[in-house]
Amino acid sequence: MMFDNVTIVGVGLISGSFALALKEKGFAKNIIGVSRTQASIDKAKELGIIDEALPMEEAVKKSDFIYVAIPVDVTVPVVTQIMNLINDKQIVADAGSTKYALCKSLEDHPKRKRFVATHPMWGTEYSGPEAAVRDAFKGRSCVICEKEKSDRDAVDTIENIYKNLGMRIVYMNAENHDIHAAYVSHISHITSFALANTVLEKEKEGDAIFELAGGGFESTVRLAKSNPSMWAPIFMQNRENVLDVLNEHISQLRKFKASLEKENLDYLTELMVNANKIKKIIE
Amino acid sequence: MMFDNVTIVGVGLISGSFALALKEKGFAKNIIGVSRTQASIDKAKELGIIDEALPMEEAVKKSDFIYVAIPVDVTVPVVTQIMNLINDKQIVADAGSTKYALCKSLEDHPKRKRFVATHPMWGTEYSGPEAAVRDAFKGRSCVICEKEKSDRDAVDTIENIYKNLGMRIVYMNAENHDIHAAYVSHISHITSFALANTVLEKEKEGDAIFELAGGGFESTVRLAKSNPSMWAPIFMQNRENVLDVLNEHISQLRKFKASLEKENLDYLTELMVNANKIKKIIE
Repeated sequence: MMFDNVTIVGVGLISGSFALALKEKGFAKNIIGVSRTQASIDKAKELGIIDEALPMEEAVKKSDFIYVAIPVDVTVPVVTQIMNLINDKQIVADAGSTKYALCKSLEDHPKRKRFVATHPMWGTEYSGPEAAVRDAFKGRSCVICEKEKSDRDAVDTIENIYKNLGMRIVYMNAENHDIHAAYVSHISHITSFALANTVLEKEKEGDAIFELAGGGFESTVRLAKSNPSMWAPIFMQNRENVLDVLNEHISQLRKFKASLEKENLDYLTELMVNANKIKKIIE
Repeated sequence: MMFDNVTIVGVGLISGSFALALKEKGFAKNIIGVSRTQASIDKAKELGIIDEALPMEEAVKKSDFIYVAIPVDVTVPVVTQIMNLINDKQIVADAGSTKYALCKSLEDHPKRKRFVATHPMWGTEYSGPEAAVRDAFKGRSCVICEKEKSDRDAVDTIENIYKNLGMRIVYMNAENHDIHAAYVSHISHITSFALANTVLEKEKEGDAIFELAGGGFESTVRLAKSNPSMWAPIFMQNRENVLDVLNEHISQLRKFKASLEKENLDYLTELMVNANKIKKIIE
């Protein structure tokens, strides 16, 4: 299956990598970019990510498939606006890191069945069209939420694309998605941002960090380079789940603190032995 | 310069990688392994890391250079024992992640000048001789503490080896080393251990972690696979500095918590924008 026209709304890391893959795998003849930022449009054209740029309404009218990958706070109104423009053949999908608020806001939309709620669990700490890469998504999971609320042909099409990109499809309801995303993605970003702030606060001699930081530091603090305008809306939209897991994390750190304050080597060791169980999961 | 005999005390990740490099770069003809664990000795021989194994005293007597890389709690008594055995030509160095306690314990030793306190800032989350790799250390910093308390020839020899391994030499007093190591290494390990415990606690459906965990999660939680018998003594020996930075980290996490509880998007964004400054340091 090859679409004549696909629109990507937002021309950044996710949509850009997605567009490159659509072209490479032969899913799209013409990619239309929609963005409020002229510099991103220019860059995306220069990088061969999009073939042309159009205003939203024009782009949607012309497209078989519209893929939305923008900050999650604007995803809700923008997807609604798109759904108001489409016919019964067009397909809309988003790539947002939160799913509950969006699915909730669309549940009574007359075109709901043409929408597929997706979350490809891939990303890097970089953003913008220049961050787009070929061979993204491969080997990772893609969550599809509320599959039963979408038309079969729309789901099949989207799944086929993601599978061709090398992703595993996982089905989940939107509420569970947001809970799991808080555990396995959002908390990692918060700890990384907070770790960067910790070290920047304590380590006034910037040179010492630069000189000494080894691979361990870099890997735990890498996500702290992530774009706040993308992540702040994710944390806010998923704040109850994020707060829940953040409270647990603070209490886990307090256990380390207590073991050190009491010089309790057995307790400290026990905490680490327990943490080692993560090997079974991520090895 | 080529040593006839070098002893490595401990045959694990660091000493094993160091021994492989010594051989490859032509610094050692014969590598002697000392370990209390017969399985490690056998594995190290099988992997070509050591040429022979001897009891400590015999090994030390026979060696031009003795390199100690064992958990930091046993480093203090073991290095002292070695220093009691050596003559005025032999060189002893350690690779421990903490330096203050060791340097303090050796300050009045009659052979202090034959000892060089080093910390090559390289490692992985794996341990044991099978974790040893070729081309380790390259591009990283190696801290040398209290250079002025060691004989010039001993320091020159050790520096020459580390430089040949591709390391940058950084001089520091032992107290400052331990402060900086808490900031750029030890806290990363604690947050990673605690993050693993958080997710293991909250995410009872282990499958969901496995299915969903993306690269971000893996990179922040990778260090949680580290060996407790190596890290517990580091945290205990450097507990005051670790507690200091851990307290700061908990307070940074509380700021994220407060911004979410108050739904204060500006404050949340400000925290992340500040964290982004780490880009300047680790890019």
